[in-house]
Amino acid sequence: MVQEIFNHRSIRKYKPDQVNPEIIDKILEAASRAPTTGNMQVYSIVVTTDAQIKEQLSPCHFNQAMVKQAPVLLTFCADFNRFKQWCRIRNANHKAYNNFLSFVTAAIDALLAAQNACLEAESNGLGTCYLGTTTYTASRIIEILKLPRGVVPVTTLVIGYADENPSLTDRLPIRAIAHSETYNPYSDTEIEALYAEKENRDDSKKFVAENNKENLAQVFTDVRYTEKDNQHFSETLLEVLRNQGFMQ
Amino acid sequence: MVQEIFNHRSIRKYKPDQVNPEIIDKILEAASRAPTTGNMQVYSIVVTTDAQIKEQLSPCHFNQAMVKQAPVLLTFCADFNRFKQWCRIRNANHKAYNNFLSFVTAAIDALLAAQNACLEAESNGLGTCYLGTTTYTASRIIEILKLPRGVVPVTTLVIGYADENPSLTDRLPIRAIAHSETYNPYSDTEIEALYAEKENRDDSKKFVAENNKENLAQVFTDVRYTEKDNQHFSETLLEVLRNQGFMQ
Repeated sequence: MVQEIFNHRSIRKYKPDQVNPEIIDKILEAASRAPTTGNMQVYSIVVTTDAQIKEQLSPCHFNQAMVKQAPVLLTFCADFNRFKQWCRIRNANHKAYNNFLSFVTAAIDALLAAQNACLEAESNGLGTCYLGTTTYTASRIIEILKLPRGVVPVTTLVIGYADENPSLTDRLPIRAIAHSETYNPYSDTEIEALYAEKENRDDSKKFVAENNKENLAQVFTDVRYTEKDNQHFSETLLEVLRNQGFMQ
Repeated sequence: MVQEIFNHRSIRKYKPDQVNPEIIDKILEAASRAPTTGNMQVYSIVVTTDAQIKEQLSPCHFNQAMVKQAPVLLTFCADFNRFKQWCRIRNANHKAYNNFLSFVTAAIDALLAAQNACLEAESNGLGTCYLGTTTYTASRIIEILKLPRGVVPVTTLVIGYADENPSLTDRLPIRAIAHSETYNPYSDTEIEALYAEKENRDDSKKFVAENNKENLAQVFTDVRYTEKDNQHFSETLLEVLRNQGFMQ
């Protein structure tokens, strides 16, 4: 049993303590051990500790305080730039990777590496939090982190020493996410049963009341992850893929 | 230090031994502890052990022997179907998630969960291998696993008891994948230095000779991951996203 997996909490409040560079190196090494497609390792990790750069990145992550507070940000990027440069030097057809599949392949590499980094950080006594905002504001992150064509940020991991001690987050029952042999469609009654515990939690009821909604699902659709925002960010992300050379 | 991370090898030969269902449950639980966007858990895992279904899936994974040989396949899917069904029942705007960003969000959830499953399987003495072919043949996998609209398979994890004991795979030096503060562009000389060890390995030289190519980069571009295949699979994957309702 991998203890870190079962102990994981997202940490959103950090102490100002710096992280020893040797621990960062260990985290990067853990990331690099993740399996990747054809062992191409088509991802990069930008390690940001500089206060000014974190300040610039802060609005990309909707000004969540932890971005400036935590000592280290790891931005995981789908990266075919390095691989294509190698191909160019070797007179190999680097144009083979200017397409959508290659973006997806590289994003998979980056994300498996990110989860290794997350667990290794936690095993070294650090707290972590993923920032889903990375794909929303990828075009601005590309400018700030000077990412060349062929590189697209897909997630960011905040790392530092925890200044809070949250409980384990609730999860749907395993039978909600696991399917036996083939996909097992849900009846409406089953869906209601699977989401009942989540809907009946005190914090869920508080969200519903605070946002003046009828139920928790509406908090998601009308407040947290709305159609308008999702459509806007879909367009900007597709534009990023075109600009970074993945839609040719 | 998470031992499993540093011990990981992809296993491609499996013993016929079945995996205890309690171990499968533990692996699924590990997957479900992975962080997900807004704790929406917009992914599903299809657990396939049935010989007939594995037989059907085999060509989707280019008839690699391990697909039929290993006792368990876990197909990780980006899944907004379940979440949208809940929204529909609750009179919330389920159309908010019929877009590209939602596919990417769900794929991120699925992939972080997959890496937890991989490490937990290994910690239980099992071997694993990811199949990159899942995104290439997603439309056929959707038919076989009966995935409804809103669901797209993104990776497959083969699980079983190893019948081989490979060495650790080579990796690029950490400085090849890590960037300090912002992206550090590579000079051609640096790229040659970073790929030198990989190019000089005996197995690399064997690949080059067997495929009658000038160098290792050309084995990737001309044989393993070609422009023609990548463009074809890009088109079919984008078609899958449209058919599954993620490009509206």
